[in-house]
Amino acid sequence: MDRKALYNLEYGVFLVSSRAGDAINACITNTCIQAAASPVRLAISCISGNYTPELIRESGLFTVSVLDTTADFELIRRFGMQSGRTVDKFAGFDYALDANGLPYLKDKANAVFSCKVTSAMELGSHTLFVGEVLDAAVLGSAPSLTYAKYQSDVKPRPRPKAEERPIIGWKCKICGYVYEGAVLPADFLCPLCAHPAEDFEPIYG
Amino acid sequence: MDRKALYNLEYGVFLVSSRAGDAINACITNTCIQAAASPVRLAISCISGNYTPELIRESGLFTVSVLDTTADFELIRRFGMQSGRTVDKFAGFDYALDANGLPYLKDKANAVFSCKVTSAMELGSHTLFVGEVLDAAVLGSAPSLTYAKYQSDVKPRPRPKAEERPIIGWKCKICGYVYEGAVLPADFLCPLCAHPAEDFEPIYG
Repeated sequence: MDRKALYNLEYGVFLVSSRAGDAINACITNTCIQAAASPVRLAISCISGNYTPELIRESGLFTVSVLDTTADFELIRRFGMQSGRTVDKFAGFDYALDANGLPYLKDKANAVFSCKVTSAMELGSHTLFVGEVLDAAVLGSAPSLTYAKYQSDVKPRPRPKAEERPIIGWKCKICGYVYEGAVLPADFLCPLCAHPAEDFEPIYG
Repeated sequence: MDRKALYNLEYGVFLVSSRAGDAINACITNTCIQAAASPVRLAISCISGNYTPELIRESGLFTVSVLDTTADFELIRRFGMQSGRTVDKFAGFDYALDANGLPYLKDKANAVFSCKVTSAMELGSHTLFVGEVLDAAVLGSAPSLTYAKYQSDVKPRPRPKAEERPIIGWKCKICGYVYEGAVLPADFLCPLCAHPAEDFEPIYG
């Protein structure tokens, strides 16, 4: 099996949120499709062990915000790259509540769907939830963010590895003194603690 | 519920095929996602009553070809706009067979997934199949066709309504004689059957 074939599946990017009692959380997923009509149902796939699916199982409710092209990496980082078990992802974040009391995006999303779970498949790594759409609204006119566009335009480029970046200085490992310059003379002695050049480590740009 | 919100979900476009015994068929769907990892599983949603899902239920096998941007409307029309119960969709069509003997696209697709059904949800209008990916291959380098691009670039624009199109001639309803020209003289008589202008109907451009 050539797993690269999986890269050719096209996706949007979504914020899936839930609430159980006072607890709210949300995560980022790229897997949301309309699974059926009359009544309209969505299917979403979430990593089974994460906090958001735990809240969805408890409450039977989830809400999907469809990210648009104004979404930035800070939004993805906040909701997609930390766990709601250890941080309050919504702290200091301005969000809206739907009729079920579930949080959704006020900005950077062009549509929202409030769903009630009608069935779920536990698939090991992931849980596939199917939910009836109780309410839906268009929130804006910016195009939906595609996963391909997230990869090419939103996700920051990885920094070059340290070895590929220029040396801009040297730091004394003993006292912290910084020598500014790419080349540390071999006979250099730290002017603060008098340790030799071999006790200095490079600082990369 | 504002159903227009559903238009903001992003999709690819896929050919889903199956075989049961000697019978093969395929249909077009826009709903295919990776639903889980280890083992890799895809989820697809198909209209329940169609012939392809019938073959999938019978054999427990389906294959997904990922359409790329070279796909044309003829391909969509052939597989998406007629029923395999009444026509042989593959007649005169050059296709390939995967290891399970299921047909897939030789051209106009950039990836193929051969799947074995592991679970299915009957959702009334649609059936949601989850299948383990037994094999996958990259077929080409053209970008995947998105549903949005299908709507904007591949699907033919609807012809203007007859009333909005110019009259380019008149046809005698009695004998079929065609008068070429936008304006039929009121005293015109059909040169073949001698019927008057009121027995002519307009031909639109």
